[in-house]
Amino acid sequence: MPAAYQPPVAAMRFLLEHVLDFDAQMAMLPGLEDVTSELAEEVLAQAGRMCTERLAPLNLPGDAAGTRLVDGEVVTAPGFAQAYADYVDSGWPSLAGDPAYGGQGLSRAVQIMLDEMVSAVNVSFGLFPGLTRGAAEALAAHGSEELKSLYLEKLTTGEWCGAMALTEAGAGTDLGLLRTRADPREDGSYSIIGTKIFISSGDQDFGNNIVHLVLARLPDAPAGVKGISLFLVPKFLPSGNGTPGERNAMSVGALEHKMGIHAQPTCVMNYDGATGWLVGEPGRGLNAMFTMMNAERLFVGIQGLGLADAATQAASSYARERLQGRAADGHGPVPIIAHADVRKMLLAGRAFIEPARALAAWTAIRMDVADRHPDPQARAAAHADVALLTPVIKAAFTDLGFETTVLAQQVFGGHGYIREAGIEQYVRDARITQIYEGTNGVQAMDLVARKVTMEGGEPLRRYLALIEADIEHAADHPLVPQLRDALALLADASSVIAAAEGDPDRLGAAATEYLHLFALVSLGWMWLRILAAAPALGDTRTPRGHAALARYFAAYLLPRAGLHAARIAAGPGPVMELDEELL
Amino acid sequence: MPAAYQPPVAAMRFLLEHVLDFDAQMAMLPGLEDVTSELAEEVLAQAGRMCTERLAPLNLPGDAAGTRLVDGEVVTAPGFAQAYADYVDSGWPSLAGDPAYGGQGLSRAVQIMLDEMVSAVNVSFGLFPGLTRGAAEALAAHGSEELKSLYLEKLTTGEWCGAMALTEAGAGTDLGLLRTRADPREDGSYSIIGTKIFISSGDQDFGNNIVHLVLARLPDAPAGVKGISLFLVPKFLPSGNGTPGERNAMSVGALEHKMGIHAQPTCVMNYDGATGWLVGEPGRGLNAMFTMMNAERLFVGIQGLGLADAATQAASSYARERLQGRAADGHGPVPIIAHADVRKMLLAGRAFIEPARALAAWTAIRMDVADRHPDPQARAAAHADVALLTPVIKAAFTDLGFETTVLAQQVFGGHGYIREAGIEQYVRDARITQIYEGTNGVQAMDLVARKVTMEGGEPLRRYLALIEADIEHAADHPLVPQLRDALALLADASSVIAAAEGDPDRLGAAATEYLHLFALVSLGWMWLRILAAAPALGDTRTPRGHAALARYFAAYLLPRAGLHAARIAAGPGPVMELDEELL
Repeated sequence: MPAAYQPPVAAMRFLLEHVLDFDAQMAMLPGLEDVTSELAEEVLAQAGRMCTERLAPLNLPGDAAGTRLVDGEVVTAPGFAQAYADYVDSGWPSLAGDPAYGGQGLSRAVQIMLDEMVSAVNVSFGLFPGLTRGAAEALAAHGSEELKSLYLEKLTTGEWCGAMALTEAGAGTDLGLLRTRADPREDGSYSIIGTKIFISSGDQDFGNNIVHLVLARLPDAPAGVKGISLFLVPKFLPSGNGTPGERNAMSVGALEHKMGIHAQPTCVMNYDGATGWLVGEPGRGLNAMFTMMNAERLFVGIQGLGLADAATQAASSYARERLQGRAADGHGPVPIIAHADVRKMLLAGRAFIEPARALAAWTAIRMDVADRHPDPQARAAAHADVALLTPVIKAAFTDLGFETTVLAQQVFGGHGYIREAGIEQYVRDARITQIYEGTNGVQAMDLVARKVTMEGGEPLRRYLALIEADIEHAADHPLVPQLRDALALLADASSVIAAAEGDPDRLGAAATEYLHLFALVSLGWMWLRILAAAPALGDTRTPRGHAALARYFAAYLLPRAGLHAARIAAGPGPVMELDEELL
Repeated sequence: MPAAYQPPVAAMRFLLEHVLDFDAQMAMLPGLEDVTSELAEEVLAQAGRMCTERLAPLNLPGDAAGTRLVDGEVVTAPGFAQAYADYVDSGWPSLAGDPAYGGQGLSRAVQIMLDEMVSAVNVSFGLFPGLTRGAAEALAAHGSEELKSLYLEKLTTGEWCGAMALTEAGAGTDLGLLRTRADPREDGSYSIIGTKIFISSGDQDFGNNIVHLVLARLPDAPAGVKGISLFLVPKFLPSGNGTPGERNAMSVGALEHKMGIHAQPTCVMNYDGATGWLVGEPGRGLNAMFTMMNAERLFVGIQGLGLADAATQAASSYARERLQGRAADGHGPVPIIAHADVRKMLLAGRAFIEPARALAAWTAIRMDVADRHPDPQARAAAHADVALLTPVIKAAFTDLGFETTVLAQQVFGGHGYIREAGIEQYVRDARITQIYEGTNGVQAMDLVARKVTMEGGEPLRRYLALIEADIEHAADHPLVPQLRDALALLADASSVIAAAEGDPDRLGAAATEYLHLFALVSLGWMWLRILAAAPALGDTRTPRGHAALARYFAAYLLPRAGLHAARIAAGPGPVMELDEELL
């Protein structure tokens, strides 16, 4: 078993209170005026206990047991159904939900900090409430009043679960190719016919209803993405009084056998004339689904962060206990944490996790502003920030998160390859985060082809100006000149991207490089903010060692910016020239 | 199932014949005079068929079935015992073995090319002959005539298997901590008492004898590595006529549950007063074992290469068939191989695999020279080259190999996470190669603390001069100026390393960076040699597209050299300054 995960509650409070000006930000937002960093800490401390006491013990056994399909019914790993019931009873699914539908109306920043801890201890479990929340958001934004009144409270409280059914065998990244049909019925409902694959939380044995949001085509729909509509398809059709009634004509065709997240039932779903209802306008399904997917993409980035922290904490504990080798003065054996090479593997994780948590919380607060600020311009600006940062957080946090779990596993040596040690599970679980909810390549294309140039590039310019201003006002630290250089590289690269509009080869060759350059500068920016906050503190509960971690970041991680910039400068020529048949 | 692996026999012949001057090199070496690239190609073509027809079909089922311990006996996955018997019958284990002991006396370059193909199709299987060969080498170099006459032919032909028993629960990287005892008996044998972990091929159900080489301490041995001796401990004690007789007092305590290489029985071995015989001098066990480990380290690097090629080939096939997205001109859906982002993931693999195969073969030829050249100085120089390159090939090929399998998996999108697709197995199997036979961190420390400065730094200087000379004579290609710059970075970094002798923090902080810088320059050097050979060819069977691949290498991979150099320049300060309790 890996060493016990320590919920980073003190670090979270520090970020909210001292780095992100959380209390003042919330005070401006109707409905969140009373949410303070003190309240957040109380909630998160309780959440941390729940995570370590209830969810963490199910993680390794859940990986070993996996999920099974018995007579067409999904059987989840021992303890999961009860844990989910307890999770709902304690109100965790509804933390940031709309109070009009049973939610507790907290900030999204608190929500993603809960998500981080749940992901750290049990990614498979966390997908149940995570997808449920996404379904609730899509329904809230696009559903009819009738659908909302029947489903939204159940989803907000987590009493019922949600799932997103997008992918088909021939339609993944390119959803325009999907073939599931929706035939209208006389009563206003639709008959859904088709097969979807890779449906996380598609079914389970929690004894509740499961609300699928399914992309399908109406009979007269045009080809491509403009012919796609969104449908709500519940496992059980609600009876007159709103309780789950008759079983819908949908079934689990198979459970996928996966590299990781074994305790998560990833389903092949058959809709055999299942009853569904249209959500939003016909032909606007992708638009409606994107409401759900953007929230999910941020959530997936947070999974990468949570797994990185859990793995690094475990590796750090191991490195303190494991005695091998000698110290510089020849005495030994010493704990391997004394060795520079081992320290680097731990530092790479730590130097990424701290500012990543800050950047995620910054983005979540911008979501709060986008949702609630009284000034429409302020809302629009915040919305643009979120649109800009979403692909960056999804892809960079999961790429760096995966890298971090691999480094943490390496600290364990041969023991890290053994399943009982628990660390290799983090690697296998982290691997999916780079793939699902849009592969990281898709995120990078979203960033370079849409987000950089949206609104004539104004949101990007505003974001870079924010960073530049903080650099100008920063105190002396080795990070400052390095970050200034990296920001200049990012600004140059942004011009290259903007000029490449309509040149898919140039955009495609640069996309992942640009996204990682963007992420490095953003993480460096958060380090600046963390450093600016640190000297003001006399609080011994807050994290220490920030100045040293930021120096490691500047010296060992930020130089990657130059690598990404060099590749962007090299352009698409070396990528495209080799004949396809020789590749 | 992944697309069928195509054995890269034509590429191998091209490298031997046109890049590495194989025929002329062999002509100088007594016993290898008749080994030609033509003969090598014939042997490798046959080996390739054996790999695809016999071993590849067992790989995915072997991963699913794994190994089991039934009543204390190991049960391997279906088909493995018969495949091993066939492998021995066909003479594959003895390819490069000493003819005096039943070997076929071929070049080591041919051996590692066989190893690459076996690793590509079935790493778990390949460890059986791989460890057997290592045991034979250690025995040949250090065993008494009596032990050699009893065991060496059986090991050379693969009739009996070998295993290396080094690691204990508290002694991995730091073997000086090991506690297994060897008590002398009156008949000259020893009673071995202790428990070893992570013993690959420790036991199986192939129905043959298994010869363990076990590190243990004599009763009067000093503490640390100088108290370690090596013992030969067979599963069955040979009877008078040399056939396996009485069962020895050793048993499998457990099989490890691992992230990958599921079909490989990784054993906890209990030696309960097992009968063993001393190999080499008392207290010189580590020295004797290193003969075995160096061969194994090269082999492990080759595993990384083979897995990288298998995964890249599978991803390339998938990318040709999978239709998603649109081309630059708007038509579609198109095969995803048309997209720049997908091409980059494939190119990263291809641009590494080709020169890596060349570098490995170059090193293997140097091993032949070290073994057989009539001139002792030529032997010594070749031996030093092998010593220098061994940690580089082990660590860089497995780090880049793992990266390559991850990129190949990414090309598959969601399908890549599903076990039946076969690609995720490559990732899990590749992960162990970075860990076993000395973690890659240990390889890097071996390079910077021993290999760079051995013989006053002369072998390193000679190696860098070789590369410099080839750069001076190279034809015009974008790679040339970039490689010249990277070589200059490597030369500077080598001075930093040499000056840091006795400063473990500086060496430790630089080690992995230096190793990868060294590898990048070496791979670039091999690209130069490949490019120099290519224009001379009118042979349509040889690989094409080299110039374009080398340009990709220069533009997208070689710039990593600057990142590693920047980190070496940053030094140990940022690595060591954070208080241990805060890390």
